[in-house]
Amino acid sequence: MEGCIVTSPSSPQSVVVMSPCAACRVLRRRCVQKCVLAPYFPPNDPIKFTTAHRVFGASNIIKFLQELPEEQRADAVSSMVYEANARLRDPVYGCAGAICQLQKQVNELQQQLAQAQAQILNMHCQNANLNMALFYMDMSQSSLPSSSNDHSFDNFFDELGFLCDQSLST
Amino acid sequence: MEGCIVTSPSSPQSVVVMSPCAACRVLRRRCVQKCVLAPYFPPNDPIKFTTAHRVFGASNIIKFLQELPEEQRADAVSSMVYEANARLRDPVYGCAGAICQLQKQVNELQQQLAQAQAQILNMHCQNANLNMALFYMDMSQSSLPSSSNDHSFDNFFDELGFLCDQSLST
Repeated sequence: MEGCIVTSPSSPQSVVVMSPCAACRVLRRRCVQKCVLAPYFPPNDPIKFTTAHRVFGASNIIKFLQELPEEQRADAVSSMVYEANARLRDPVYGCAGAICQLQKQVNELQQQLAQAQAQILNMHCQNANLNMALFYMDMSQSSLPSSSNDHSFDNFFDELGFLCDQSLST
Repeated sequence: MEGCIVTSPSSPQSVVVMSPCAACRVLRRRCVQKCVLAPYFPPNDPIKFTTAHRVFGASNIIKFLQELPEEQRADAVSSMVYEANARLRDPVYGCAGAICQLQKQVNELQQQLAQAQAQILNMHCQNANLNMALFYMDMSQSSLPSSSNDHSFDNFFDELGFLCDQSLST
């Protein structure tokens, strides 16, 4: 989009006038046919350019866009406006502050997830113990005399507990 | 730190010369006594200023620093240099790309954590079932006749399973 063509309804005859893009209007310059800023800074959204301009400066914005292929320029403008807004909201840390916060959140979540996974592993072992205990009790109930049964039952738990401790410590 | 004072060892007499800060050297201007950039852009690290200057422009950097109290200026320079490096590495997305990636990572970790917590709750129920089954089996082994025991044991599991299903669905 170059300088926009708009019609003036107040005129007795429909008059076509050229409206410069928001960037050229802010920079008080003529919006030429191939203005590199016009496709991304339409005249109806002047804040978008003002924000980016206050942080990066017009010459840097133009330079960045000229160094990129056209299909990547819209994304580059969006990210610059996003960063500029972050810098104006937080003049000390800007986007870097948000990155720091997110990195902290990632670290905390990774720690919580590791704890939850350890707990799951531990509970798997407990579950296996209990299932085997039930199975063993069921078997012993039908086939073995009570006294020897209790004894091997204890041994079985000792062994299974040892195996689980080993798997948790690795 | 203003323009640095250095001595020249090659001179027959020790001569004191003023070395401008990295910013003033790049901008080819005289580094004055109260240069706002000098404390953060020492002459031995010219890349730091060049990087920030390529992205924000010297006038914006000076403006940002002047708007901040002195104790926050070092952090502001660090974050600007960080952001500038990100923009030069990734001219399309810059810091916003890193934020996007981190936000995605946070969402994935939150999802994994929620799944792990649901699994823990489920296993708590299974464990409670198994513990109660063991307890019930132990009790029944010593006090109840075999046939009625089997029947109430099934009922007990049905009820406990129902309670666990309810707690998981809430």
